[in-house]
Amino acid sequence: MSKQILILPGDGIGPEIVAEAVKVLQLANDKFQLGFELSYDELGGAAVDKYGVPLADETLERARKADAILLGAVGGPKWDKIDPAIRPERGLLKIRSQLGLFGNLRPALLYPQLAGASSLKPEVVAGLDILIVRELTGGIYFGQPRESKVLENGERMAFDTLPYSESEIRRIAKVGFDMARVRGKKLCSVDKANVLASSQLWRAVVEEVGKDYPDVELSHMYVDNAAMQLVRAPKQFDVIVTDNMFGDILSDEASMLTGSIGMLPSASLDSSNKGMYEPCHGSAPDIAGQGIANPLATILSVSMMLRYSFNQVAAADAIERAVSDVLDQGLRTGDIWSEGCNKVGTQAMGDAVVAAL
Amino acid sequence: MSKQILILPGDGIGPEIVAEAVKVLQLANDKFQLGFELSYDELGGAAVDKYGVPLADETLERARKADAILLGAVGGPKWDKIDPAIRPERGLLKIRSQLGLFGNLRPALLYPQLAGASSLKPEVVAGLDILIVRELTGGIYFGQPRESKVLENGERMAFDTLPYSESEIRRIAKVGFDMARVRGKKLCSVDKANVLASSQLWRAVVEEVGKDYPDVELSHMYVDNAAMQLVRAPKQFDVIVTDNMFGDILSDEASMLTGSIGMLPSASLDSSNKGMYEPCHGSAPDIAGQGIANPLATILSVSMMLRYSFNQVAAADAIERAVSDVLDQGLRTGDIWSEGCNKVGTQAMGDAVVAAL
Ligand SMILES: CC(C)[C@H](C(=O)O)[C@@H](O)C(=O)O
Ligand SMILES: CC(C)[C@H](C(=O)O)[C@@H](O)C(=O)O
Repeated sequence: MSKQILILPGDGIGPEIVAEAVKVLQLANDKFQLGFELSYDELGGAAVDKYGVPLADETLERARKADAILLGAVGGPKWDKIDPAIRPERGLLKIRSQLGLFGNLRPALLYPQLAGASSLKPEVVAGLDILIVRELTGGIYFGQPRESKVLENGERMAFDTLPYSESEIRRIAKVGFDMARVRGKKLCSVDKANVLASSQLWRAVVEEVGKDYPDVELSHMYVDNAAMQLVRAPKQFDVIVTDNMFGDILSDEASMLTGSIGMLPSASLDSSNKGMYEPCHGSAPDIAGQGIANPLATILSVSMMLRYSFNQVAAADAIERAVSDVLDQGLRTGDIWSEGCNKVGTQAMGDAVVAAL
Repeated sequence: MSKQILILPGDGIGPEIVAEAVKVLQLANDKFQLGFELSYDELGGAAVDKYGVPLADETLERARKADAILLGAVGGPKWDKIDPAIRPERGLLKIRSQLGLFGNLRPALLYPQLAGASSLKPEVVAGLDILIVRELTGGIYFGQPRESKVLENGERMAFDTLPYSESEIRRIAKVGFDMARVRGKKLCSVDKANVLASSQLWRAVVEEVGKDYPDVELSHMYVDNAAMQLVRAPKQFDVIVTDNMFGDILSDEASMLTGSIGMLPSASLDSSNKGMYEPCHGSAPDIAGQGIANPLATILSVSMMLRYSFNQVAAADAIERAVSDVLDQGLRTGDIWSEGCNKVGTQAMGDAVVAAL
């Protein structure tokens, strides 16, 4: 039976990097006989231009029917001044929420070939391999009520709500424990339980879920301390599970520890492992259209797709090996280039991965 | 006229480091004829033990009457299992809020003598000098309603509220601009305006306040990006102004960039510059009572007190010079010690600063 893959190139460098990832996806499709059928649509600014909204109903319908989604990146200065309700990011938030993609996996992995790119000392980050599991459809990102209003004294005020229910926490905690179980067997749950009511429930529920995972070592850390420890000694972490807002902050911090955010993929999964896959980096409007963006994070997102949504471990491994091969060959896009390496553009990099595969 | 200083040694290493800072304060008092009168009380766990609550009404009364407060640190495992309503941190949050100490100044300064202590590459952090201005009495730390409850379906849920009013944002923005004006003239306001209603208001009000500071270059950054940029290129920042929760996270991250959080003081000011001064680090219960804690952050907090609450610039400068002198002499407590330096305890370090002053 064929599998439907929806491709959403998005904005900025999105179309360029997705084009390379699609080459890799097509090749894997043929080589491993995966039976994928690809279709295309728009999300973000490109969707605003085409449909007037950052996520059209028909696109959402297609996304619902798809077995997996590959996304480039969304946003850019062109849409910075439009009505906040239809900004590109709203499309991203809506598709996450509407498809129930609550489980966001963000690896922070240091490629030995790129060890020098980190702003941290080599001994602090050598061999770094952290997985951040971020809750993606709850918390303050979607909490109601949220409002902006004028008080009786004429003063403006605005507020957001940070809610979490037991079941929302339970399901993301399970993802965290499941991931830790097949990795280093250590899970650190990050919260602010010394201040927030939602964090107190978070911690209690994570503890309860932990009872079913006696083989995984569970610890808890306050978010401010976690932000410090990631800088001080990041290798103490294996898997980190945390809420939507803290996960947004800590996953970006962690990815930057590697110095090569252009290498990092991500997955956003629902309860049956249907997923949306995208690079961790943004749409980089400043370099869009120049053919110099790094397509490897998007290519590695294809690998994550094969691994998590289709259980095609051999194909996923092959793509990761091919990426490692091109790094061994000394090929580098500008963002990861260093003295002595061979600087290549987006297409050449994609072609090299295809050749290596 | 005499000035009243309330000393709150707190928990863990608090009493040890405060004792050294008080020596320095007394000497400055004599030398510069400051007319300070010192009195003592308890906050945090020590207050729970003495009064049954982490901030007693009579202590709060004393704090209100004082012209400035010197705090050690609060918290420890002894009070981890008590009723959350009377945990040590609640005393800290209550004194901040009751005294209206909304302006939290957290410098992240790299001492050239300690450059090697950072986990970041020397060239990335050499000369680092950032000031984080954190809103300290609003936002999600104090927002109402906050609740933990059981839903009709039997599921538990909990929520917090993140509110900001125009006047709360305006006054902290002013602190940010005022600080930037006397430093590098660059202010970066950090928010999550692409997601949060409160951040949209935050950004709008900061923009408005900026009109009165044409000499300060204002920029805005999303909090996830700020967490990345602090790791990638921290020297791009001069002053950062942000909300209570983001400030908690980013100031800890920034302080750790220096590798020597045992050196960093902080100030929490009200609208007339009355303030509470404390080290950035915690109560370190694991090394309490051993006489090995670093008192320099607390001593530098005294310097901040003289500078911000009493406008005693000469005395403040003298203390900072004395601290720099003892570092030049090669004296180091364990946390900042490195090969070739002279390891000393808490008291010896305090005495050395007194001698240098
Ligand atoms: C674009 C923005 C809404 C989004 C988020 O905050 O989740 C992004 O930062 C991310 O992490 O995917
Ligand atoms: C102890 C805790 C409540 C406090 C805070 O979160 O404000 C601390 O982390 C700080 O930054 O002073």
